[in-house]
Amino acid sequence: MTDTTLKIGEREFQSRLLVGTGKYKDLEETRLAIEASGAEIVTVAVRRTNIGQNPDEPNLLDVLPPDRYTILPNTAGCYNAKDAVRTCRLARELLDGHNLVKLEVLGDEKTLFPNVVETLSACETLIKDGFDVMVYTSDDPIIAKELEQMGCVSVMPLAAPIGSGLGIRNPYNIRMILEEAKVPIIVDAGVGTASDAAIAMELGCHGVLMNTAIAAAQKPVLMASAMRKAIEAGREAYLAGRMPRKLYASASSPIEGTFF
Amino acid sequence: MTDTTLKIGEREFQSRLLVGTGKYKDLEETRLAIEASGAEIVTVAVRRTNIGQNPDEPNLLDVLPPDRYTILPNTAGCYNAKDAVRTCRLARELLDGHNLVKLEVLGDEKTLFPNVVETLSACETLIKDGFDVMVYTSDDPIIAKELEQMGCVSVMPLAAPIGSGLGIRNPYNIRMILEEAKVPIIVDAGVGTASDAAIAMELGCHGVLMNTAIAAAQKPVLMASAMRKAIEAGREAYLAGRMPRKLYASASSPIEGTFF
Amino acid sequence: MTDTTLKIGEREFQSRLLVGTGKYKDLEETRLAIEASGAEIVTVAVRRTNIGQNPDEPNLLDVLPPDRYTILPNTAGCYNAKDAVRTCRLARELLDGHNLVKLEVLGDEKTLFPNVVETLSACETLIKDGFDVMVYTSDDPIIAKELEQMGCVSVMPLAAPIGSGLGIRNPYNIRMILEEAKVPIIVDAGVGTASDAAIAMELGCHGVLMNTAIAAAQKPVLMASAMRKAIEAGREAYLAGRMPRKLYASASSPIEGTFF
Amino acid sequence: MTDTTLKIGEREFQSRLLVGTGKYKDLEETRLAIEASGAEIVTVAVRRTNIGQNPDEPNLLDVLPPDRYTILPNTAGCYNAKDAVRTCRLARELLDGHNLVKLEVLGDEKTLFPNVVETLSACETLIKDGFDVMVYTSDDPIIAKELEQMGCVSVMPLAAPIGSGLGIRNPYNIRMILEEAKVPIIVDAGVGTASDAAIAMELGCHGVLMNTAIAAAQKPVLMASAMRKAIEAGREAYLAGRMPRKLYASASSPIEGTFF
Repeated sequence: MTDTTLKIGEREFQSRLLVGTGKYKDLEETRLAIEASGAEIVTVAVRRTNIGQNPDEPNLLDVLPPDRYTILPNTAGCYNAKDAVRTCRLARELLDGHNLVKLEVLGDEKTLFPNVVETLSACETLIKDGFDVMVYTSDDPIIAKELEQMGCVSVMPLAAPIGSGLGIRNPYNIRMILEEAKVPIIVDAGVGTASDAAIAMELGCHGVLMNTAIAAAQKPVLMASAMRKAIEAGREAYLAGRMPRKLYASASSPIEGTFF
Repeated sequence: MTDTTLKIGEREFQSRLLVGTGKYKDLEETRLAIEASGAEIVTVAVRRTNIGQNPDEPNLLDVLPPDRYTILPNTAGCYNAKDAVRTCRLARELLDGHNLVKLEVLGDEKTLFPNVVETLSACETLIKDGFDVMVYTSDDPIIAKELEQMGCVSVMPLAAPIGSGLGIRNPYNIRMILEEAKVPIIVDAGVGTASDAAIAMELGCHGVLMNTAIAAAQKPVLMASAMRKAIEAGREAYLAGRMPRKLYASASSPIEGTFF
Repeated sequence: MTDTTLKIGEREFQSRLLVGTGKYKDLEETRLAIEASGAEIVTVAVRRTNIGQNPDEPNLLDVLPPDRYTILPNTAGCYNAKDAVRTCRLARELLDGHNLVKLEVLGDEKTLFPNVVETLSACETLIKDGFDVMVYTSDDPIIAKELEQMGCVSVMPLAAPIGSGLGIRNPYNIRMILEEAKVPIIVDAGVGTASDAAIAMELGCHGVLMNTAIAAAQKPVLMASAMRKAIEAGREAYLAGRMPRKLYASASSPIEGTFF
Repeated sequence: MTDTTLKIGEREFQSRLLVGTGKYKDLEETRLAIEASGAEIVTVAVRRTNIGQNPDEPNLLDVLPPDRYTILPNTAGCYNAKDAVRTCRLARELLDGHNLVKLEVLGDEKTLFPNVVETLSACETLIKDGFDVMVYTSDDPIIAKELEQMGCVSVMPLAAPIGSGLGIRNPYNIRMILEEAKVPIIVDAGVGTASDAAIAMELGCHGVLMNTAIAAAQKPVLMASAMRKAIEAGREAYLAGRMPRKLYASASSPIEGTFF
């Protein structure tokens, strides 16, 4: 397939699957799963993962070398703008000025839903401070637009709560976000299995970020391979233009959605 | 991935995607799409396609050589057992004794739903007559079981009406069929896009047969590639064992299905 | 609301909710729940319920007097045509020549799915024998049509397996059945809660029969009242003609069903 | 049924259906539909409806007398906090100090999605100013909680965009909101037909507000009656406690949601 690249800010990528690094059995499993996923962008929870803060402990970057992967530090575990901003600055230092970050400001520990008000506030600060911000948010199209207009390089609406594995709960909202988007829309959180990822791409999303769906599968490396193929399948199906839906083939018109 | 093969009767296959040959622009597009799909089994409507009946016209087998593909003659267009049996015998003659067929006996021209009573009757005759019968049927688990017990080498429930592109309308019935199945269950008809195929495989189906979803896409060859990847993705996700679904990650138990 | 009556053969009814009599705590709860449901047609499993077979035991007809309710004997527990026919004849004797029956011929004990082949066979015998047959079947539109053409006074497709509470699993099939129907289509089995019943009526079904959804609710009498209102609500909504669905109000056209 | 009342601030209501007044053919149809709905709370768009601003024109309150209905002024058409606050104050003046309002601050004219940031800001001002605020919002559980903690007397998440008729797009989010709620949660916007309203109540919502679903039905007065019954049916079903869902009745455990 000849496809355009995924362009995030000035960076370009072939793969449209972004992956996290948490919840694996060990660093070797992390390495194998990420390799099988074909991901080029790998997100790292700075507050939970050693990327140099503790020089005496195993460093994730030893198995995921920054010259091979684009490391995307994220602010998982931050519940307000101030903590999130501080975490991004720490990451930039640890990564020698690398300014691409994934911002997430959570609303509560139970649902891990984003706090969109704090998210907007953190974004403003980070963008002024020179960061390229990819931003985790709800599937609210008004907030998504505001984040884009503020200057985020990618808006990342949830498919469902982090770690839920429920798939895209509200494709209508994702569709509304896509209709207006000028930056890549990357579904972040909630994907549970391969078809969920394919559906996101078929809707027209530009990429999918996931962690638990791979790491908490019974065979993470095999699921990583499944996800790689599902993302490509969904992308190709989107570009190929699917057949219309009908109640049956001889129906004179596509289904109008008037009865279910 | 190390996977078992798809075993249909005594034949074994690597690919779990089976494709039809109708509705393409021309034979060249047919050839390219089928190549991109990676399919090893290609089904042919004997009543509508020249596989030797008309020696002076273009023969499908020239672009789909039987030494490369397993040709699966089908009885599309037959509305009773008698016509279907006769069509299978004609195919066997044309294909030098090849005894693998896909039986479909339709119920009406509007919905193209199977007539399961005539299907059962045709099956009985064909099996006695030495055919290896793969059989298109509804998603009724009782009929599916009866077809298996009669000796069909594969039972092929519809996902949705032929040519509808609606995807799996009733995964519950497919699930009930799978719980009891001892022969491969191959979803036949109704798939519309890549994620539909992935979902079929994630449910545990052993394969998917499709035609319109590829041939009626805006770019059939690209859609064929999407389908190949989707089938592999769904199969791998099934084998990998997906994460459990929860309302949110911190929920103490998987979703019990008690509220939606 | 001014509505037409539900006409089954020559009989006419105001209520479109039909109820079963199994699984209640005692006969008093049965009586109260059925009263709250407003049902006029009450179905009775002849093989499991005393309607006169055992003169010394409590008789269901003492709490559900046939001069107030139309008793609809059913063949629950029959797995072949012969048993079902015999059961219907026994019921006719016990009920002094009452010839309206609900035929169900089951396919297996696990799923309680109908065996449509045996059902067709039993129907033929019963109709010749002068019965007015209401017939439980799968949601297969070809079988439904055949049962109607044979002379059944009502065709009763399942929403989902008996006792599952899953609601209408495949509204597309119910819709196809309704498009062609000339006798009342009454959804039988699978309804779990009030909205399930409303959805059946909104699709255009002529009635709904249920048992477990009421009897296995925590408060059966209250659920019976809920179901009565849900059936009326769904019927009125169907007659009122719902607003079109759109992605949002300012969208220029109704949703075409092309993306989900 | 013996049910508790719907308590909003200090006011108590028997009906759990709240209705709007827009889009009717004329005031007489408005009156008849609202009467058929059984609603006690009627919401009025102050910017679009004459409730005394124009003394020489027909006044809605002549057909909906405030001694019979609780008039709920709303801020439809406001796109920022300032306009919304001013509109509420105008309404209070026109209605002699009546302090119950429905706040909606919209995000854009295309989707009519709420702007939650401006909504939070308007709420703060209105509550300080002595209003009892019922607030239209997205289905974001974090924002819903914040609005409750701020002192709103009811939180009103959308089911789907205003005027879309899509029903509850994301019952998971509504469920999360309900788990934490201490004030009535009233679904506002997006309901299209009777079963949508029943589903909202079965989830545990305390009420439903709708306008287009009734006014844009082909027969608004009949649809109003349908909605009244659907709300009661859904509420009763919720209180009655539905049966568990199973793949089939003999399954040993309720469906765990692990496969669809």
